[in-house]
Amino acid sequence: MSFSYVSHLECPKCGSIYAHHKPNQLCQCGSPLLVNYDLEELKNENEIINKERNGLWRYHKLLPVIDPDHVVSLGEGMTPLLSMPALGEKLGIANLLMKDEGMIPTGSFKARGAAVGVSKARELGITRLAMPTNGNAGAAWSLYCARAGIKPYIVMPVDAPVITRKEVAISGAELFLVNGLISDAGKIVASLVKEEGFYDASTLKEPYRIEGKKTMGYEILEQCGSEPPDVILYPTGGGVGLIGIYKALKEFRELGLFKGSRLPRLVAVQAEGCAPIVKAWEEHKSESEFWENSETAAFGINVPKAIGDFLVLEALYETNGCAVAVSEDEISFTQRQTAELEGSFICPEGAAVFAAAKRLRENGWIKADEKVICLNTGQGIKYPDSVSVDPPVLEPGEIIRK
Amino acid sequence: MSFSYVSHLECPKCGSIYAHHKPNQLCQCGSPLLVNYDLEELKNENEIINKERNGLWRYHKLLPVIDPDHVVSLGEGMTPLLSMPALGEKLGIANLLMKDEGMIPTGSFKARGAAVGVSKARELGITRLAMPTNGNAGAAWSLYCARAGIKPYIVMPVDAPVITRKEVAISGAELFLVNGLISDAGKIVASLVKEEGFYDASTLKEPYRIEGKKTMGYEILEQCGSEPPDVILYPTGGGVGLIGIYKALKEFRELGLFKGSRLPRLVAVQAEGCAPIVKAWEEHKSESEFWENSETAAFGINVPKAIGDFLVLEALYETNGCAVAVSEDEISFTQRQTAELEGSFICPEGAAVFAAAKRLRENGWIKADEKVICLNTGQGIKYPDSVSVDPPVLEPGEIIRK
Repeated sequence: MSFSYVSHLECPKCGSIYAHHKPNQLCQCGSPLLVNYDLEELKNENEIINKERNGLWRYHKLLPVIDPDHVVSLGEGMTPLLSMPALGEKLGIANLLMKDEGMIPTGSFKARGAAVGVSKARELGITRLAMPTNGNAGAAWSLYCARAGIKPYIVMPVDAPVITRKEVAISGAELFLVNGLISDAGKIVASLVKEEGFYDASTLKEPYRIEGKKTMGYEILEQCGSEPPDVILYPTGGGVGLIGIYKALKEFRELGLFKGSRLPRLVAVQAEGCAPIVKAWEEHKSESEFWENSETAAFGINVPKAIGDFLVLEALYETNGCAVAVSEDEISFTQRQTAELEGSFICPEGAAVFAAAKRLRENGWIKADEKVICLNTGQGIKYPDSVSVDPPVLEPGEIIRK
Repeated sequence: MSFSYVSHLECPKCGSIYAHHKPNQLCQCGSPLLVNYDLEELKNENEIINKERNGLWRYHKLLPVIDPDHVVSLGEGMTPLLSMPALGEKLGIANLLMKDEGMIPTGSFKARGAAVGVSKARELGITRLAMPTNGNAGAAWSLYCARAGIKPYIVMPVDAPVITRKEVAISGAELFLVNGLISDAGKIVASLVKEEGFYDASTLKEPYRIEGKKTMGYEILEQCGSEPPDVILYPTGGGVGLIGIYKALKEFRELGLFKGSRLPRLVAVQAEGCAPIVKAWEEHKSESEFWENSETAAFGINVPKAIGDFLVLEALYETNGCAVAVSEDEISFTQRQTAELEGSFICPEGAAVFAAAKRLRENGWIKADEKVICLNTGQGIKYPDSVSVDPPVLEPGEIIRK
């Protein structure tokens, strides 16, 4: 009985095979690599899921870390799947649920990718790594690296949420800002990787982050039991979460753990100010184009060109899903509405997803009786500027006049 | 088989009895009321803990909500109990653990009190309530009230963490600031309660918040199994968590669920700038005195006089515990040290607790082989000012020179 059933890495474009016990980045053809498992052998096990563990490591047999001593964990995973009855009533979706990824170390779903990515980096003997980030991934990787004893070099746009700078700084990581976008940060990291030989932990340039993200899909299926959702909506920047969820659905189906007749339809949600995946989907393309002058307050999805765009689009096409862009006003309105109706202070990216659900219900793409899961990828408190407030200030001894 | 085995409210000072199915505040003698359960009857149940539930509602039989439909939940509870090997090595405490209350809705342990307090308020038919707060409790109660359809009036000091204002505001609650301390906010709330007849949700003036907080104690015992901790350290402002943990330990012992020979020693940790409990403990008093001109960056424990001080002190004396005050420098140093060594960005109140553990190990009060649990009551990201950072800013195309 192995801790992990990982078998090898495989290129989804050219089919090349790579070993999982050596550091790997992109395929020689330039494509991201995907992790494969020996699912046939795993099927013979009595227990595929280790239910004695509470977090995402309950799926350790489907994760790439071979030695349990290499696991770097801050208690991530098994986030709540909450019913959203009041918001659901407003939207006309009676069975509306939120997978709340705010309840995770560092307050964003990036912790999943960091937990598994950093654990595997430790297993591979990596001591220094570099990555560009829109903030939350850099924060998560820095903190997990601190726990693992790995030194990270983080480059983020000056406009990234300020709190994420502080998370990086307090962990002891090396932090650099760039007066530009994540694509500019990526170029700086590429140069550092080339010059110094650091491990490149950029989105999908290291193959294991996606394995952490996919556990959102496992958890959704486990939490839904015999009634998997009809639709899952996901805020899409780099799109790793969506690629990961699609991978998870297929792996669980292969293992006989998927209880539905067909896979949930996956929806990629973007902001109108940065919607390359939406444009590609509308044009039935298999890849996206660089989105010029991108801009959105939902900073995590301000990614003008994702390296895994073709995998995102494949997931949409294969599940009969779709891609939707929402406006800044819809994001802001929905963020407040969700707090007022459901008591959840979600991040702008999460608000974009509920706004998209509203649109898709209105145009009939989502049916009234469908089970719909919206992914909130992080806490609203990481985006204090998304709320303005000007309360009255009293002096001691004053009273409130109503 | 009942959902709750609540029996009545009882005054720990004068012994008066009150009913749990009507709104109650303080006892007529001025003391807080404590909730009692029919533990004898509960002992006859096969399952005291409902392990099918993942959060704190797994203890619903030991919580005051009678009808499950009244439960207001955002998925709170069963926070991780993390080993802290690197920090433990520095401190000379090999078996050092952190109960991480940052991983909970609203990012602070106040969510526990709010979940149970608001649920019971809903059950009692409360529609409007008022409370003073140092920030995090107001944020938690506002968001849970939004989910419950209750209107809260929140008064907090202008110096309370700014993010908590935003959490209150986005929930739709009424927010007022006071140019003073939580004690000044308390007076404003008292006047509002008197004038308007609102339910007073001030610390320990409503009896159910403590029932939510006590679940930290249940979880610690459940997570530790047959090896309960020797010491539990808790950052003490109002002290409700410590009173709650003590109550939980006694209830589990009564039910046969406590596996040790004697209860863990409880430690109240305060800041040197506001240490009324420490002073009272050092003087072997049963109550504390108002601490003049209190000040600390660990804002949640800036409480100059706690209404439940006598219950906190009783818990310390009865468990052979102690009370310790730490300096602002120790808090700040320890916050950074914990992030660098363990990857956890904890709040200043949590940092105070680790700093206290260090002191108690140095003076021998904690033995090298003892199992020590430090409570981190919230996320560091709610206190962005606790970290300063000034990273280099690059232009696109620039490279990092090492």
